[in-house]
Amino acid sequence: MAPAIHIGPGEPEHLIRAVEEGGGRPAALEEAEGIVWAGPEDDFPELPSSVRWVQLQSAGIEPWIDRVRDTPDVQFTSAVGAYSIQVAELALGLLLAGVRGLNRYARAWSWDPHDEGTLQGSTVAVIGAGGIGRELIRMLEPHDVKILAVTRSGRDGTLPVERIGEIWSKADHFVLCAPATDGTRHLIGAPELWVMKSHSWVINIARGSLIDTEALVQALASRIIGGAGLDVTDPEPLPDGHPLWASPHALITPHVANPPSAMDRDLAKRVTENVRRFAAGEDLLAPVNPDRGY
Amino acid sequence: MAPAIHIGPGEPEHLIRAVEEGGGRPAALEEAEGIVWAGPEDDFPELPSSVRWVQLQSAGIEPWIDRVRDTPDVQFTSAVGAYSIQVAELALGLLLAGVRGLNRYARAWSWDPHDEGTLQGSTVAVIGAGGIGRELIRMLEPHDVKILAVTRSGRDGTLPVERIGEIWSKADHFVLCAPATDGTRHLIGAPELWVMKSHSWVINIARGSLIDTEALVQALASRIIGGAGLDVTDPEPLPDGHPLWASPHALITPHVANPPSAMDRDLAKRVTENVRRFAAGEDLLAPVNPDRGY
Repeated sequence: MAPAIHIGPGEPEHLIRAVEEGGGRPAALEEAEGIVWAGPEDDFPELPSSVRWVQLQSAGIEPWIDRVRDTPDVQFTSAVGAYSIQVAELALGLLLAGVRGLNRYARAWSWDPHDEGTLQGSTVAVIGAGGIGRELIRMLEPHDVKILAVTRSGRDGTLPVERIGEIWSKADHFVLCAPATDGTRHLIGAPELWVMKSHSWVINIARGSLIDTEALVQALASRIIGGAGLDVTDPEPLPDGHPLWASPHALITPHVANPPSAMDRDLAKRVTENVRRFAAGEDLLAPVNPDRGY
Repeated sequence: MAPAIHIGPGEPEHLIRAVEEGGGRPAALEEAEGIVWAGPEDDFPELPSSVRWVQLQSAGIEPWIDRVRDTPDVQFTSAVGAYSIQVAELALGLLLAGVRGLNRYARAWSWDPHDEGTLQGSTVAVIGAGGIGRELIRMLEPHDVKILAVTRSGRDGTLPVERIGEIWSKADHFVLCAPATDGTRHLIGAPELWVMKSHSWVINIARGSLIDTEALVQALASRIIGGAGLDVTDPEPLPDGHPLWASPHALITPHVANPPSAMDRDLAKRVTENVRRFAAGEDLLAPVNPDRGY
């Protein structure tokens, strides 16, 4: 029988359609077995005991950790992996833009060539090889670069995170794709920045807390590294007047790795697939584990 | 016996080494069988009759056409293909930057997200599938896009240039990789721009003359297309005060698709290979055909 799925907040048509396509039946909260929640944690309703599963809309689930812990009988799933292509696409865009000097050329009012590097022939460290990292590695493959992937497990030819200290002076560029956890806070700070190469670009499309912002501002001002491409910042949003806005070596996008139009489409796909799995009693995609932090 | 190759202007060490690595013998002009010329056409020396081959440093050879025509006994070769990866890399960088709004975010001083598109799911027209076009297509493959390649021949599943009129309303984005010839002048003008989609980006890493600049300025001002990423312009260099500098929808790089450092390395590789072929009596890479224009 089609499982009863409550969709909220409001009545987002694309998600109602997605639930139906997955074989679910959109339903009122009171009779719901599953919930698809595309809103903030603050507005989340009290759950009736019939609910066994909650699908969230975001890949990062920091605000939900306590609630997930306090509701052990309900399976929460995130959108980890659903937006991987969009995010990897922006990561590659920021990396190419940085390495080829587009951040500075975009601000120029005059024809003034300077000698920039190229991505070709460089070594790119991809830190965190989950969905986004794997998509990025796929996109980097035709670029004639050497890839150093860092993962928790160190499996499949990747470097285990315990050995991450080796990469800072070895790679040319760094892309942060790791989740925000206690273990990844300030993964890049002064000690890491100060051993990087003077042309190195650091790209962060994960979470702002992975970088020590004060140290980064100093490293950019001192020309210790080539630059930083940031879709996420700490603090976020980055306040007006923050020194990163003025740095010619920073390229900031305001957390737009999943643009709304693509996000709707990609979330709908994920909802359809997880509703189908829920109906069939299969394992769901992207189960949240509060101890792991994602 | 090692062929005598004159290298000029000056004594560029990386090219002397490249000639030696290819099995050639650096030699004075008077006794040269081949010339490697890394300078402008104006400074080109009068050739002794012993010379049978001239290697040029550029992929575009417009200033050389008359001279090549007037010297039918000498084989000229260009650097077509030698810089393809660098140029394709910048083309992809400009395309991603444009589609993801990096041109506008690079100029922002405030956290102000707007809904941009993504490259994923779009149709990209690659116009001219020589070395650069082929590299670009290879780089686009992991991006989940549909590629429309336009070539003179229409071979290998590409669209022949006679049918190019079909693509302007069909593709989402356009990358110009075709040589500058009489036939490609103003390939994109008002009629083409006016049928494009309102989110379309036009990327030009070929030659400025392929686009009617006046029509482009109007199309950008009228928001007829999404934007233009230009590594080449007409006029070039683009003069201070030109309206393209002020457009928030233009992203201009000052003809840096081959940055000097990468160019030296890539030209040296090409010289080594063509000297080796010259010594062995094999066909040379990238022979110039003045009637074809490249």
